[in-house]
Amino acid sequence: MIKKNKTNIAIVGLGNIGSYLYKYLIKNKNYLSKKSNTLSDVLYVSAKNKSKKRKLSIPKRKWLKNYIDATRDKKIDIIVELIGGAEGPAKKLVFAALKNKKNVVTANKALIAKYGDKLAKIAEKNNVNLEFEAAVCGGVPIIKSLKEGLIANSISKIYGVFNGTSNFILTSMDKNNLEFKDALNRAKSLGYAESNPSSDLNGEDVASKLKILTALSFNSYINNKDISVEGINKVDRVDIKNANLLGYKIKLLAVSEIKKNKVTQRVNPCLVKKSSYIANINGVLNAVIIEGKPVGETVIQGEGAGPQATTSALVSDILSILKGEKKLPFMIPDKKRKKIYFESISNKKFSAYLRVDVKDKRGVLSDITKTMSKNKLSIKRLIQNPYKSKKYSSIVIVTHQAKDSLLNKTVFHLSKKKYLIQKPKFIRIENI
Amino acid sequence: MIKKNKTNIAIVGLGNIGSYLYKYLIKNKNYLSKKSNTLSDVLYVSAKNKSKKRKLSIPKRKWLKNYIDATRDKKIDIIVELIGGAEGPAKKLVFAALKNKKNVVTANKALIAKYGDKLAKIAEKNNVNLEFEAAVCGGVPIIKSLKEGLIANSISKIYGVFNGTSNFILTSMDKNNLEFKDALNRAKSLGYAESNPSSDLNGEDVASKLKILTALSFNSYINNKDISVEGINKVDRVDIKNANLLGYKIKLLAVSEIKKNKVTQRVNPCLVKKSSYIANINGVLNAVIIEGKPVGETVIQGEGAGPQATTSALVSDILSILKGEKKLPFMIPDKKRKKIYFESISNKKFSAYLRVDVKDKRGVLSDITKTMSKNKLSIKRLIQNPYKSKKYSSIVIVTHQAKDSLLNKTVFHLSKKKYLIQKPKFIRIENI
Repeated sequence: MIKKNKTNIAIVGLGNIGSYLYKYLIKNKNYLSKKSNTLSDVLYVSAKNKSKKRKLSIPKRKWLKNYIDATRDKKIDIIVELIGGAEGPAKKLVFAALKNKKNVVTANKALIAKYGDKLAKIAEKNNVNLEFEAAVCGGVPIIKSLKEGLIANSISKIYGVFNGTSNFILTSMDKNNLEFKDALNRAKSLGYAESNPSSDLNGEDVASKLKILTALSFNSYINNKDISVEGINKVDRVDIKNANLLGYKIKLLAVSEIKKNKVTQRVNPCLVKKSSYIANINGVLNAVIIEGKPVGETVIQGEGAGPQATTSALVSDILSILKGEKKLPFMIPDKKRKKIYFESISNKKFSAYLRVDVKDKRGVLSDITKTMSKNKLSIKRLIQNPYKSKKYSSIVIVTHQAKDSLLNKTVFHLSKKKYLIQKPKFIRIENI
Repeated sequence: MIKKNKTNIAIVGLGNIGSYLYKYLIKNKNYLSKKSNTLSDVLYVSAKNKSKKRKLSIPKRKWLKNYIDATRDKKIDIIVELIGGAEGPAKKLVFAALKNKKNVVTANKALIAKYGDKLAKIAEKNNVNLEFEAAVCGGVPIIKSLKEGLIANSISKIYGVFNGTSNFILTSMDKNNLEFKDALNRAKSLGYAESNPSSDLNGEDVASKLKILTALSFNSYINNKDISVEGINKVDRVDIKNANLLGYKIKLLAVSEIKKNKVTQRVNPCLVKKSSYIANINGVLNAVIIEGKPVGETVIQGEGAGPQATTSALVSDILSILKGEKKLPFMIPDKKRKKIYFESISNKKFSAYLRVDVKDKRGVLSDITKTMSKNKLSIKRLIQNPYKSKKYSSIVIVTHQAKDSLLNKTVFHLSKKKYLIQKPKFIRIENI
C-alpha cells in the first residue's frame, strides 16, 4: 500500500528545535509512514557549528558541506529551514530552495513576515509548498485552522496572546510580585527567554506573527508598514499592581481587525478585564481568537513555543507535503490576494490607563487635568497614591474613550512637565 | 487559472442547517471558487417535505424526485447528507453514495459513530472522501485539527464539553437558579434544544462524538460497546447549589484516554473545580482539550451547534473536496487502524459527590457511614442540611478516591434503605 518513492528531507539549523525535530523524525519513522502512506528520510543536516555538542549522534554522511547544497541536490524534496532571521543564510536558503523547486518548511516568522509574499509567488509558480505553521504560535494550529477548518468564514477580527516569553514575564510579575528584570531572569533560567530576548520584549516577534495572520485572515498581502508595535519593556510592577486594583490584568495583545474594508494591526500591552478569557491565559501559553461569519467566535489555545510544540507544527507541515497535499502558502493564488486598505490606529478610540509620577506640589493635579481637558480627554477615574517618602505621588488615571492620536498627544504634553519624576505611562484598555 | 470542470453538489435534507447551507453556497459562489480555484454548483436538493415553508426560493429544476437519485446521477460529485439518524434514509443514502463513488459530506454523528468504520472502508476502496467535521462540535474544527494541525502527536487524552444544549441547561440552572425543566424550556424557546432533546439530555449525542474522536485520536476502530454514558437528566438545582458550596461546577464531560495501551471512554455529568478551564465554558459553547506528545495541551473552543457553526464545518469539508484533497476518513488506511484494548471504567478511581436525602431519624447517619465503610469507601467531607420542614435531611458526602465499581455498589446499597426519600445521587469528581 505504501508508495515506493522515498521523500528526502534536509534540516538546516540544529539548535534546540532542529535537534528535537531530527530526533523526532528518526524515532517516528514508522508513525510518519503510517500517517502519510509514504516513506521519508532525513538525508542531510547542516548547522553553523558542526562540532557543537548536541546530544545527537548524526552519521557523518548526513552532514552537508555547505547548507546551500541542499537546494541543489536532486535527491532532496523538502528543506526544513531552522536558521532564523529575516536576512542572511535563512533568506538565501529559502529563496534558493523554492527557485530550485524544493518544498520548504520553516519556523521563521521574521522571514515570512518580510518576504512571505515574494516567496509565496515563487512557490506558486514552481508548484511546491511553502509551509510555516511553526512560525506562528507553535502548539496552536492556527495556520491550518485558517486554511482548512475555518476556511468557510469571512473573518472580521483575529487577536490574542502570541508571545510566550512576554506572557510568562507579565504573569510572573503579577503572581510572584517580581520586578521586570527579575521576571526576565526567571524566564531565562527556565529556558523561556533567549539570551537576547529583545524581539520578544519589544513586540517585534508578535508583530511578525500578526502580519502573517492578517494576510491569511483577510486574503490580503502582508503589510509591514501600517502596524503599531509596542512591547512590554516599559511595564513595571506598579502598573501591574494598579491594573489589579482597577479590575484588570496586563497582557501583550496582538489585534488585527477589518472594519468598513479597512484593516488595523496593532501589538501593544493593554489592560483587559480580569474576568475576560484573555486575562486568564497565563505563563507561556498562547491563545488565538478568531471572529468570523458564519462560525462566530473560535478560540485555539496551546503551548506557544519550545522545541516540542514547534516540532508538532513542523511535522504537521512535513506530513502535509508527504501526503502530497499541494497547497498555496496564503491559501489563494497570488493574483487573487487583495490590495486592502490599511489604516493607522490614530483614529481608533481607546479608553486608557495613564500613570503620572510627580513631585507632590500644589497645583500639579490641577495642571494635569487641565492638560487633559485641553486635549479633549475626560477622566473616568483618578487615584492619587502618595509615595512612602511623601515627597512624590503617583497619579493613576483611567480615561474615557478618545482617539489614539489625542491620547498620544496628551502623553506627549504631560511628558514635558517639570514636576514629573519619570516619563508618564500610557497603556490602552481593550474591551475584550 | 480556475479549473474548468464544475463540481456539482446535491444537498439532501433541508432543515435549519440544510437551508442555511444552501443559502451560503449560492451566496458565496465567488468566494468558494477563489478559495478552491475551481467552480461549484448546487445542482440538486431533496427534502422529505417539499412543500414546507423554508424562506428559500429553490428553482423547481433543482428538486430531485427521489433523494436516492443523487447517488445515481453522473453529474453529481458531492452529496451533503443532512437527514440525520443512524438508520433509515440517511444510512441508505450515504452507503449508496460511497458505493457509487460520490464524495460525501455529513453532519450525522449517529451514523458515523455506528457505521463510520464500514463507510470509511468503502470510501477508501472507491477513492472518494467521506468528511464529517460537522458531526463533532460544529464551530470547533477538531476533526481537521486532529487530522492535520496536530497530526504529529501521540495523543494520550481528549476530553471536553461536546453538547451545547446540555451545557446551556446546566449554565442556566446555575446562573439563573432554574429547575431542570424550566432551563430546558428556556433552551427550547431560544432554539438551543430540539422539540425532542432526548439524545442531548441522555448523553447519547455526546457519546457519538466521543467515539468518533477516540477512533481518530488513538488510530483505533470505533468502539460502541465499551463506553459509559450518563446524561444530565438526573442533575437538579440542589446538586448545582451543593457543587457551588463545595467549590465546583457541574459539567457534562466526555473523556477518552489511553493508559498502558488501554482506552477508556466515558460521558457523564461531573464536578469540576470552579477555577478550571472547563468550569468556565458556559452556555452553548463547546470546548475540546487534547493532550499529546510533543505538543502538550491544546484547547479549541467555539460554538457547538446551530446552522451557522455547522455550515462553517460543512463548507470546510466541501472546500477540501473542491480543492481535490484526497483524504482517508480516519486519516490512516483501514488496515492500519489498530484493534486497541478498551476497558470499562469500573476499575478507574474517582472521588465522588453523593447526596442522600433521608427521613431525619436517629441512626440514619450512622447507617450511611457504615454502609460506605463496608464498601471500603471513606469520607472526605460530609454536610448535613436539614429540609425546611425539618422532617427530612439532605446529606452531602464527598468521598475519597475509590474504584468506580465500589462507588456504584455503595449507591446501589444505599438506594435500598427504607429511610430514603428519593434515590441517592452520585456524581463523579474530575480533577481537570
